[in-house]
Amino acid sequence: MTSTVMLDLTGQMLIAGTPVRGTGDEIRGVDPQTGNPIEPAYAYGNRCHVGDACAAAAEAFPAYRSAPIETRARFLEAIAANLESISDALVDRAHAETGLPRPRLTGEVGRTAGQLRLFAAVLREGSWHQARIDPAQPDRAPLPRPDIRQRSVPLGPVAVFGASNFPLAFSVAGGDTASALAAGCPVVVKAHDAHPGTSELVGRAITDAVAASGLPAGTFSLLYGFGPELGIALVTDPRIKAVGFTGSRAGGMALVAAAAARPEPIPVYAEMSAVNPVFLLGGALASRGAELGRAFVGSLTLGSGQFCTNPGLVIAVDGPALDTFVAAAGEAVAASAPTVMLTPGIAAGFRNGVEALEAEAVLVARGAEVDAPAAPCRAALFATDAATFLASEALQGEVFGAAGVIVKCSDAAEMLRLAQSLEGQLTATIQADEPDHGQAGELLDVLELKAGRILFNGWPTGVEVGHAMVHGGPFPSTSDSRTTSVGARAIERFLRPVCYQDTPKPLLPNAIADGNPDGLWRRIDGQLTKD
Amino acid sequence: MTSTVMLDLTGQMLIAGTPVRGTGDEIRGVDPQTGNPIEPAYAYGNRCHVGDACAAAAEAFPAYRSAPIETRARFLEAIAANLESISDALVDRAHAETGLPRPRLTGEVGRTAGQLRLFAAVLREGSWHQARIDPAQPDRAPLPRPDIRQRSVPLGPVAVFGASNFPLAFSVAGGDTASALAAGCPVVVKAHDAHPGTSELVGRAITDAVAASGLPAGTFSLLYGFGPELGIALVTDPRIKAVGFTGSRAGGMALVAAAAARPEPIPVYAEMSAVNPVFLLGGALASRGAELGRAFVGSLTLGSGQFCTNPGLVIAVDGPALDTFVAAAGEAVAASAPTVMLTPGIAAGFRNGVEALEAEAVLVARGAEVDAPAAPCRAALFATDAATFLASEALQGEVFGAAGVIVKCSDAAEMLRLAQSLEGQLTATIQADEPDHGQAGELLDVLELKAGRILFNGWPTGVEVGHAMVHGGPFPSTSDSRTTSVGARAIERFLRPVCYQDTPKPLLPNAIADGNPDGLWRRIDGQLTKD
Repeated sequence: MTSTVMLDLTGQMLIAGTPVRGTGDEIRGVDPQTGNPIEPAYAYGNRCHVGDACAAAAEAFPAYRSAPIETRARFLEAIAANLESISDALVDRAHAETGLPRPRLTGEVGRTAGQLRLFAAVLREGSWHQARIDPAQPDRAPLPRPDIRQRSVPLGPVAVFGASNFPLAFSVAGGDTASALAAGCPVVVKAHDAHPGTSELVGRAITDAVAASGLPAGTFSLLYGFGPELGIALVTDPRIKAVGFTGSRAGGMALVAAAAARPEPIPVYAEMSAVNPVFLLGGALASRGAELGRAFVGSLTLGSGQFCTNPGLVIAVDGPALDTFVAAAGEAVAASAPTVMLTPGIAAGFRNGVEALEAEAVLVARGAEVDAPAAPCRAALFATDAATFLASEALQGEVFGAAGVIVKCSDAAEMLRLAQSLEGQLTATIQADEPDHGQAGELLDVLELKAGRILFNGWPTGVEVGHAMVHGGPFPSTSDSRTTSVGARAIERFLRPVCYQDTPKPLLPNAIADGNPDGLWRRIDGQLTKD
Repeated sequence: MTSTVMLDLTGQMLIAGTPVRGTGDEIRGVDPQTGNPIEPAYAYGNRCHVGDACAAAAEAFPAYRSAPIETRARFLEAIAANLESISDALVDRAHAETGLPRPRLTGEVGRTAGQLRLFAAVLREGSWHQARIDPAQPDRAPLPRPDIRQRSVPLGPVAVFGASNFPLAFSVAGGDTASALAAGCPVVVKAHDAHPGTSELVGRAITDAVAASGLPAGTFSLLYGFGPELGIALVTDPRIKAVGFTGSRAGGMALVAAAAARPEPIPVYAEMSAVNPVFLLGGALASRGAELGRAFVGSLTLGSGQFCTNPGLVIAVDGPALDTFVAAAGEAVAASAPTVMLTPGIAAGFRNGVEALEAEAVLVARGAEVDAPAAPCRAALFATDAATFLASEALQGEVFGAAGVIVKCSDAAEMLRLAQSLEGQLTATIQADEPDHGQAGELLDVLELKAGRILFNGWPTGVEVGHAMVHGGPFPSTSDSRTTSVGARAIERFLRPVCYQDTPKPLLPNAIADGNPDGLWRRIDGQLTKD
């Protein structure tokens, strides 16, 4: 397929395939290096635009969910191909709007396309149907057993709120959109103000794929708007049946509250905040303290620290080995290259966060002064003791950006108590050598209940897109710990089970039809089989 | 195992294995036939009792969740055996407290034991682990892939609120308790006031099994108390991590609101209300209208209509065939035996509900006058047209008990519009012969999005306990349509995924260890295998 995605930006929303100019305040992308606005202007949409997008999504839903699975899989692949075909334009625009380095953005195009293809593969593999058959037992006493079958159906139209920090992989065509579309749900995206032009390009790539795949236009819409107004209108529209969000705790909780207050409450999958603790155990510190210090700062400062999984907290027993780690980390922070953050607003939030840490902990090191970009990032590393940490809300909170706190504990028992006191986290990391395995096992027992992903001897900033990944975790890291927003199981968030009792054979969906026409793994009387 | 469950009732709560006398108001079971109280008195617990039970549950959680799976499975089987060993006493007491017929209660003991054994089998089969392994790819470019594995862990202590209408199968040792215990979650039950003695007996059966299985005493507690006080205290205790509830919409929504307002919101699985529509298609009506009318009333009046899945709404095209159905149904209602409801309060609610229907629809028939029990049930059947139905909140609402409304439509299109206008339902039923399959298919497309279970040519009151059952549905039939409270998948409600990255082999849980020591079905790079 040769893509014909239009690269000239228009500043328009895309409502069910139709470009529509907003009527509200205008925003522009901002180059965080210079602070200069980037054309074109995007005008905010209003409640009527929300209504139009949701009406189109609801109208599209029956046909979209009933389209052959292969059509849906190829649609996802068409979006991926469209994105790759405009990769240069995407990287240029996203670089201008976010300041993120081009190689990182090139990788993100690949990651975004890869996610879409993963869900195409998940669709074809078919376990998401959750097909189950308990065959009839006409001779059972005292009562015969009816024929009972189960499969999954999509929830309905889904609202997606893109994140600022991954303008591609967690935005308009990111994991939430990909998994909702895979599940059979039309999607209405509210674009993030931090990268409006990137959002328009991606929106066009999806819109073109919708049309090329012969799917109803309402399968996808892209809106621009003020979060507290347009975002809440979107989440409270009765036609929306679930919400995906990646962003701040305040933003996520506002959507959770709005969804819970609806006459018909709906699920919100909000991935919000985490400090992603790193536990340094004694053997690892002794054998590679300096190396760990440098590697930690590499993870801390990656992408100006603008990762949900940025390791903002280090916990270890005080002593000479930790001193070595701290010295190496401090040197690395002091030597860290000046960088730029996504937006001037995020940079201001980072400065305030660092000031709050500075008021309550000891400064270990700051990054070099930056050559005055509009959104500067100077990495910052602090140290404190466990009692001070536990008494301070500021030290326990997330500072979005390259800021970290090292907590020096008196012994392993204090480390464990500190682990027990943590809020829910996306990740927890343990640096452990073989002699540390006893302590690591104890920590693991605690951290399993605190985090969605536990890493050993690595750094949490990389999040693989695969079948076993969990990007999620207990509150407040997300609003729903039972799910993941990255990886194959993300599709389950937008499905619900339906049971069919004594359904006439001609009316049974393929997934649970006799003879297993689609060759699925199914449970017959609870046993997995392809029969 | 010979059971030694004590059959002398004490009126005490059971907090982590210890009988504790409440300090608040006293309640007694009430014989709904006579209105007479039944000894002993049960004193309501207070906030401190809630705190004690939750503290014990939290303390028990690490050991309980880490116990070998086989220990957990045998524990569930021990509860089942204990219940069966006291079946006579259970049936006697439940009959006295609820007025439900003995054969039904004997069946319910079997169903309750069967549920527990189903979850023991689910535990041993092991797919609930959701074990996944994406093996490391050390040579992947540009970056090596780490070793990533996933399994499920339990959420933590669970609060369960038993239902009035199934004093065994949906109460103290019912599906919520069985599935939460199976998942590895300690359980704190608030007993339903309608059957306090039955609850104590069942609580003792569980408590004895906890001790006999060598599990921590805090694995199970049973409290008595006033819902708006003790119930809310339980749901808002920070140690409780999920809630199971079966009951009224008002009760369920109060728990949902309390759980959402916690500093750490938690999932609530509330199974609330439904009218369970039945669609009669033309062919079926023509070929067996009278038979359908009688069978409908059989389902409507079963157990005095006190089923979550009671069919309270019939929808069909007006005409002579429907007249035949209505006449037969009316005759059956008029001839229906006088019955007794669970409590005087439920009977009063039923009377009020019937009065509300009477004010807005045409009476088809009432059941015979009852010989003045304390909680009488006179079945009631009404008829109306679609416009009246759609304009009336009373006609669309659930009346708990044997009351039904027949909506006469002008044509098939109006039936379909009526289906589209329905709120979420536990079940929807289609009576269809072969010539009806075209219309049935159109209805099925709509009803899949409205109900958790769709039945053909049967009645919804029977709910099989199996692998494919869904007892759930869109709001307001439940607060979480993504789940089922009956059947094997109920265990998923109390689990969340955790990901393990580059975890040292000695620290990996069995479910995701190399060599598959437990012989589980697992996904390796997304493909199901027992390797």
